[in-house]
Amino acid sequence: MPRDKESIVRRLKRIEGQVRGIQGMVDDDRYCLDIITQISAVRAALDKVGLEVLDGHARGCLSAAIKSGQADPAIDELMEVLGRFLK
Amino acid sequence: MPRDKESIVRRLKRIEGQVRGIQGMVDDDRYCLDIITQISAVRAALDKVGLEVLDGHARGCLSAAIKSGQADPAIDELMEVLGRFLK
Amino acid sequence: MPRDKESIVRRLKRIEGQVRGIQGMVDDDRYCLDIITQISAVRAALDKVGLEVLDGHARGCLSAAIKSGQADPAIDELMEVLGRFLK
Amino acid sequence: MPRDKESIVRRLKRIEGQVRGIQGMVDDDRYCLDIITQISAVRAALDKVGLEVLDGHARGCLSAAIKSGQADPAIDELMEVLGRFLK
Repeated sequence: MPRDKESIVRRLKRIEGQVRGIQGMVDDDRYCLDIITQISAVRAALDKVGLEVLDGHARGCLSAAIKSGQADPAIDELMEVLGRFLK
Repeated sequence: MPRDKESIVRRLKRIEGQVRGIQGMVDDDRYCLDIITQISAVRAALDKVGLEVLDGHARGCLSAAIKSGQADPAIDELMEVLGRFLK
Repeated sequence: MPRDKESIVRRLKRIEGQVRGIQGMVDDDRYCLDIITQISAVRAALDKVGLEVLDGHARGCLSAAIKSGQADPAIDELMEVLGRFLK
Repeated sequence: MPRDKESIVRRLKRIEGQVRGIQGMVDDDRYCLDIITQISAVRAALDKVGLEVLDGHARGCLSAAIKSGQADPAIDELMEVLGRFLK
């Protein structure tokens, strides 16, 4: 999925920049609650990337596994990963 | 708080490296669910930094505000930020 | 899925009881942080039920949709619901 | 805090009703994704109650502890509870 891949890498680069920005805020002794607001924004951005990767997985590997009669192990694995992602 | 500050910046640098690592995983077409597992790890790490910053805030600014009779606006602001952080 | 259904209803009944228990704690002026700990436990229990329902959905409706060539609308809908569940 | 208490109990009663409603949805074999959407709504409602209890704690016990020079143990305890609530 080349198009999704680019979009995901672009989002991750932006997140990397945001994390670096938070380091700068800490270094500059910026107000704690502004730092937490920024951390919340990065978390929300990470969740979006996670959902985008999950979307690609559902349309790709998961659909292929279900069509080829391998639904059960594929869904077991997905649920385990989702359980961690949800926390 | 110079000691906390160093620990927070160190954690953020590690998170930055993890985010870069996830970009590499996407570039290398690594398995989607491994990527999501890594994203979950970064989220958990971000939550820990957030809590560490919050801890510093509670001991510093918030305690000072409460002692000087400014509890109400300080707690209003904290709750608003926590509401976003919790999502 | 009769077996899952029973297990899900049983979990929901337990959650209902826990929520009633928290009302009792509030009525009895129990310590705020103990109340929040109980609220966290209910949230974790709700997440587990949500995952169990999701598991049934993936094995039932979603698998059927994918096998019958209806993957795209089924996955669009799933991702939208997951986006809300993740918050 | 009698006023907050009433508002918190009222919210918890509504949540209890919502949980009972979800049991009915499961019993009636309602569509899985609608059930998950309802579970997400209950989680969001629980988070709001949690924040309301936390708000009362910050204005009450926590402020009193900080004013009487007991900030450190009070904040240690708060951070531990917040760490669980955040998950």
